[in-house]
Amino acid sequence: MTVIPIRTDSRSYEVRIGAGLLDTLGRAVCACTRAARCVLVSGENVWRLYGERAEQSLRGAGLEVFPVVFPPGEDTKSLARYGELLECMASCRLTRSDCAVALGGGVTGDLTGFAAATYQRGIDYIQVPTTLLAAVDSSVGGKTAVNLPEGKNQVGAFWQPELVLCDTDTLRTLPERELRAGMAEVIKYAVLGDPELFEKLRRREISEEEIIETCVRMKAEIVGEDETDQGKRRLLNLGHSFGHAVENRSGYRLLHGEAVAIGMAMICRAAAHLGCLSPEEAAAVVGLLQAYGLPTESPWPPEELEDAMLLDKKFASGKLSLIVPERIGACRIVPTAASELKGWLEAGYERSV
Amino acid sequence: MTVIPIRTDSRSYEVRIGAGLLDTLGRAVCACTRAARCVLVSGENVWRLYGERAEQSLRGAGLEVFPVVFPPGEDTKSLARYGELLECMASCRLTRSDCAVALGGGVTGDLTGFAAATYQRGIDYIQVPTTLLAAVDSSVGGKTAVNLPEGKNQVGAFWQPELVLCDTDTLRTLPERELRAGMAEVIKYAVLGDPELFEKLRRREISEEEIIETCVRMKAEIVGEDETDQGKRRLLNLGHSFGHAVENRSGYRLLHGEAVAIGMAMICRAAAHLGCLSPEEAAAVVGLLQAYGLPTESPWPPEELEDAMLLDKKFASGKLSLIVPERIGACRIVPTAASELKGWLEAGYERSV
Repeated sequence: MTVIPIRTDSRSYEVRIGAGLLDTLGRAVCACTRAARCVLVSGENVWRLYGERAEQSLRGAGLEVFPVVFPPGEDTKSLARYGELLECMASCRLTRSDCAVALGGGVTGDLTGFAAATYQRGIDYIQVPTTLLAAVDSSVGGKTAVNLPEGKNQVGAFWQPELVLCDTDTLRTLPERELRAGMAEVIKYAVLGDPELFEKLRRREISEEEIIETCVRMKAEIVGEDETDQGKRRLLNLGHSFGHAVENRSGYRLLHGEAVAIGMAMICRAAAHLGCLSPEEAAAVVGLLQAYGLPTESPWPPEELEDAMLLDKKFASGKLSLIVPERIGACRIVPTAASELKGWLEAGYERSV
Repeated sequence: MTVIPIRTDSRSYEVRIGAGLLDTLGRAVCACTRAARCVLVSGENVWRLYGERAEQSLRGAGLEVFPVVFPPGEDTKSLARYGELLECMASCRLTRSDCAVALGGGVTGDLTGFAAATYQRGIDYIQVPTTLLAAVDSSVGGKTAVNLPEGKNQVGAFWQPELVLCDTDTLRTLPERELRAGMAEVIKYAVLGDPELFEKLRRREISEEEIIETCVRMKAEIVGEDETDQGKRRLLNLGHSFGHAVENRSGYRLLHGEAVAIGMAMICRAAAHLGCLSPEEAAAVVGLLQAYGLPTESPWPPEELEDAMLLDKKFASGKLSLIVPERIGACRIVPTAASELKGWLEAGYERSV
């Protein structure tokens, strides 16, 4: 088992990574919270595979457990499901000292985290990521959210979990497409700050556990410096400004990781076209995404993405922070006015790269 | 104009109290936020009286203003209205640097504050209280919330405003019943920690502005020490544990202040009956509430209130913190197990006091 400490201004906690950790869930929850009851939130697919084991572990540790199972997919990250979850929590009479456990991928984690952040003005929660994407990214760092019809993650809170428990065995049952989607976030970390990881990924000389550990360590460092997205943390949005627009435009038929892959390829092409990044390195990123079976082209024209982008949360004071690669392992935050967006977007379609 | 500084761990801001302040709103918002746009949230009655002036002041300062007007009353503090407000904010393309302005009473302030706390993971907001209750209590201190069918304020966040602007002129148009309800919170402050205020209220030798100033100063001190309700701030719940149950049981036909008055009378009677408070002082509190035209009897039997109370947010680790007066000007936090609740509740009906 690998243990990575996360230290933020608001809370410190551990990310535990290893095989078979699911059976330690109950004891772990009792050790890090004062809970007597918990809701155990999951998607239908994950519930079928791991629900019973998680529930048994929690009950075995003496907790009263209330399972809440939602349909899988991004549609569950809505205000309507958020309301349902809160009403479940109230009807189970959860108190301020009780907790919520999110067993699943990013959708389950984001929804459960937001409900925990706001139920009775905030209760403890535990992330048990069962997808690669959740393990390397969304379960760590306390960003919780649901979507609005107008855009992704438009409603949420910064609320850190008490523990992230990543049982690497659960990734073995992940559908191939989900695993690929998770690799998009992994490649993001490599492009952001780790050329060595990029090389290892290219040569496929790295284990799943090492991948997760490397990514979580990088995230821990960034989130420790900037919990609430005022500075450095915005780097983690590499590929996300274009990616969220693509995801939204697809009606969420594209997985988040797939949309991020397209967004990353686009920003690399744009960066190369505008002279920030060498064409060779841009081609290497696009090539690595493709080697992992990820899409790299937006099927929608730039003007269709522009509108979705104007609602991006990072659009503060009329500027959006685009994350632009300068080389593999180094990116820069580029404040971009709404009027400049189109130029960046169109450059993202340049096929010279 | 009186200016009272509020200093909490998360933010420092001012409460400004005085006649005619509404016309300074626009300039004030521009001075304390980076907003270019704002939603101006209000209830129908308040909107009719002050909406145009508030809107003009904001526009005059160069802000783009999007009014959002809800029906008056506690029903508006729901997840459904919260969702509507968020979708308004998104469709007006509010960004992270924009803001929300709450023009109204506690319902408007709590709802707007919660939407501001969670839209794009948190934007600035300004409280413009137009009721006595909001001026002395709910607009200060950053408690935001909406209700669930299961209970009051079950969903929310701690999120401090950037400014509280209390134009005492707006209180002149307050319906008599609302003004009386606000006095319940004022009497609460007196019983909690200010025998001199209690005396002045009894003799009616105090101006409205002095009342507001005295209460806000006490709240500022308490909230400065304990922003998130871990300790001393719980004292502000005097009368609220029974009061919320009464309010809930009434289907919100009772105003919040009226329910708090009943809750305060009940806890004083119970405290006297159980030997914590002298019967004379209990009678003095009940008498003062009645002198200000407030109800002091629960029309529902104790067992009907018990169930609503079991969902109280303060019920952490199986204990509810009852706030029990020991004398006028001093109260104590009494951790109370669920099994002891009934005894307290029944003592609250003792007519010997």
